[in-house]
Amino acid sequence: MDPELIRRLATPASTKVMLCVMDGLGGLPGPRGRTELEEADSPQLDRLAELGAVGQSVPVGIGITPGSGPGHLALFGLDPLRYEVGRGALEATGIELDLGPRDLAARGNLCTVDADGLIVDRRAGRVATEVTAEIAGVLSAVALPGVELMVRPVREHRFVLVLRGDDLSADVSETDPQRVGVPPLEAEPLAGAGDGTGPAAERTAELVNGFVSEARRLLRTRERANALTLRGWATRPDLPQLPALWRLRAAAVATYPMYRGLARLVGMDVLDAGDSIETQIAALGRHWAEYDFFFVHWKHTDSAGEDGDFLRKVRAIEEFDRAIPRLLALGPDVLVVTGDHSTPAMMAAHSWHPVPLLISGRHVRVDDSHGFGEGECARGGLGTIPAREVLPLAFAHAGRLAKYGA
Amino acid sequence: MDPELIRRLATPASTKVMLCVMDGLGGLPGPRGRTELEEADSPQLDRLAELGAVGQSVPVGIGITPGSGPGHLALFGLDPLRYEVGRGALEATGIELDLGPRDLAARGNLCTVDADGLIVDRRAGRVATEVTAEIAGVLSAVALPGVELMVRPVREHRFVLVLRGDDLSADVSETDPQRVGVPPLEAEPLAGAGDGTGPAAERTAELVNGFVSEARRLLRTRERANALTLRGWATRPDLPQLPALWRLRAAAVATYPMYRGLARLVGMDVLDAGDSIETQIAALGRHWAEYDFFFVHWKHTDSAGEDGDFLRKVRAIEEFDRAIPRLLALGPDVLVVTGDHSTPAMMAAHSWHPVPLLISGRHVRVDDSHGFGEGECARGGLGTIPAREVLPLAFAHAGRLAKYGA
Repeated sequence: MDPELIRRLATPASTKVMLCVMDGLGGLPGPRGRTELEEADSPQLDRLAELGAVGQSVPVGIGITPGSGPGHLALFGLDPLRYEVGRGALEATGIELDLGPRDLAARGNLCTVDADGLIVDRRAGRVATEVTAEIAGVLSAVALPGVELMVRPVREHRFVLVLRGDDLSADVSETDPQRVGVPPLEAEPLAGAGDGTGPAAERTAELVNGFVSEARRLLRTRERANALTLRGWATRPDLPQLPALWRLRAAAVATYPMYRGLARLVGMDVLDAGDSIETQIAALGRHWAEYDFFFVHWKHTDSAGEDGDFLRKVRAIEEFDRAIPRLLALGPDVLVVTGDHSTPAMMAAHSWHPVPLLISGRHVRVDDSHGFGEGECARGGLGTIPAREVLPLAFAHAGRLAKYGA
Repeated sequence: MDPELIRRLATPASTKVMLCVMDGLGGLPGPRGRTELEEADSPQLDRLAELGAVGQSVPVGIGITPGSGPGHLALFGLDPLRYEVGRGALEATGIELDLGPRDLAARGNLCTVDADGLIVDRRAGRVATEVTAEIAGVLSAVALPGVELMVRPVREHRFVLVLRGDDLSADVSETDPQRVGVPPLEAEPLAGAGDGTGPAAERTAELVNGFVSEARRLLRTRERANALTLRGWATRPDLPQLPALWRLRAAAVATYPMYRGLARLVGMDVLDAGDSIETQIAALGRHWAEYDFFFVHWKHTDSAGEDGDFLRKVRAIEEFDRAIPRLLALGPDVLVVTGDHSTPAMMAAHSWHPVPLLISGRHVRVDDSHGFGEGECARGGLGTIPAREVLPLAFAHAGRLAKYGA
């Protein structure tokens, strides 16, 4: 649904909508011919499916495997092909580093180069996060003319670089050659929308190269992690803000920084949700009266899927299933359960497969589904719909969309 | 389907297509767990479903509740998000007042104001239509410089105002404050697509305010219905004309003015169809040889749904069902049955739910549906398609669409 149309039709109401995102929910048949969700003993989800309607959501497009960013943007009602969160911005978001309007971020990798400056290990042996934190401290001291800079560790060899200043440009090439035996690349200004490169891109490339050579000097005595590469240049994404767009108060209840960050990028308040489903439910209870929309994120399905651990993903589904009575006890008018993408344990990776979708609440056209699983969902009454239509559909059921036309 | 593509592919043929629109057809499960259509004893529709194929149409978009205008434009093959019929134009259409190219229409409400000019009743106690007709006669005598004007009663307190003249603009604000205790608003020119307001909008606002103050003077001695509000400024919509677009002769057989008007807006001939299904069928019979496409409108399903009367909606479906043998006896090559939107009796209102769709005729890929109901349709062989694709699909089955590309 186009933001302009949402602005026109969104109507305040006293209803509450809860969107439960079971990360990487969709799966593929395992050893016994059933998917993780079908294998799971999940009587609560099955009952919601029986009393409500099911279908499938397509995160980005048919055949497209989404990252976490696009998968969530779609569930927040935005077309992930239109709105992109650059890698650097997503990485910053993941460590709760909120970018400002003058910030330019990149994802950095520590690497190891030999005496000739040629890369011998692109990930510096996946150096410990503590070491990266120490190096980040050193690199933060680099001084560049006219800009501030921050270097923050992420995990293992990964870090985030943020430059803060006027007229910085993301139209700068990446310095990671993506192979060993060659030196890191120089940053170069990229041609923008116009014909040539702009002065902002040229100056930014100079600043980046200045940072890289000074960093190389500071790290030169190290045997490993003595150089770095930078990619995914990104400024703060300019995304529609859910509260203004939909005229409601929106809160996120997520235990992982990345998802809290994504929620913040679309204007949600991020509640202190602790690190377990219990603390998440407690947060919902404490703030129930204050918000109209709640985004509840459940990470463990995806982590297990990524690890290729079929049974652990089954158990992650079952653990969320057991929490459902407490979610329902809060009294949401509309409850949606889906995922941001599929992560079949059999692939140990994100995939392009459609994601099971369930909607429960008043005015749902109940279908004849008797359980929540990929097979039932493929035949479900909601059909197979773009993930970005899930939120409008939920808000329609909650009486938050006015009639279009007379 | 894009009008440009239709123009390129539309092919004359000797086939006849009948589109039966059961207004507000889609429903929600009632007391016995079945929708109105599922509850209805409708052997003819069930047989058509068995011999044909079923699916669902989505009038405007997922989660969007359509008004009658957008719902019908979609069934006439037009994207209702691209083509809009303004409230004033639709209201004029509803009383068979066809707007000309120099006309500007608004929907008017008679209201009651106190001695200080503050609104005390926004609908003037839903004054009788006859009273509104009398007042409309009085107001029609108002003289404005350079424009003609017409005031026509609609129903109860509602009327239509039409200004006819050169360079009138719909970019004028509404005078209805939408609440009591305040005076009606002044009309003001609105900023158009450009930066400021145009001279046409400024002059139109002046004319409108002139009309309002003169009307107030004429009505000042009345105790009730002594003032008015105006909203939904609209000029004649510029819609593609079905006969030229599809290279065929199109006729509408509708008993309600609104739907006759909508058909006229897309270039259909409107037949004298009386006020019952019998007179509608008689009109079809009289004119069968003269047209290639017939739009048959059945209103009672929607009226019953709007009234929240589940059983009356069931009976309205059954009444139409009994007429089907006589429709088939005319010999349509392709028969489509669907609705312009859902009007579940359980909601007593239009809704966003997809609408049952049925197609019968030669070359239909028969699916395994055994009846015409929401459940069967959600699983039907036609799938869930935008309502604006229903007409191209029907015309394809009627051999009226040439092959695309060599």
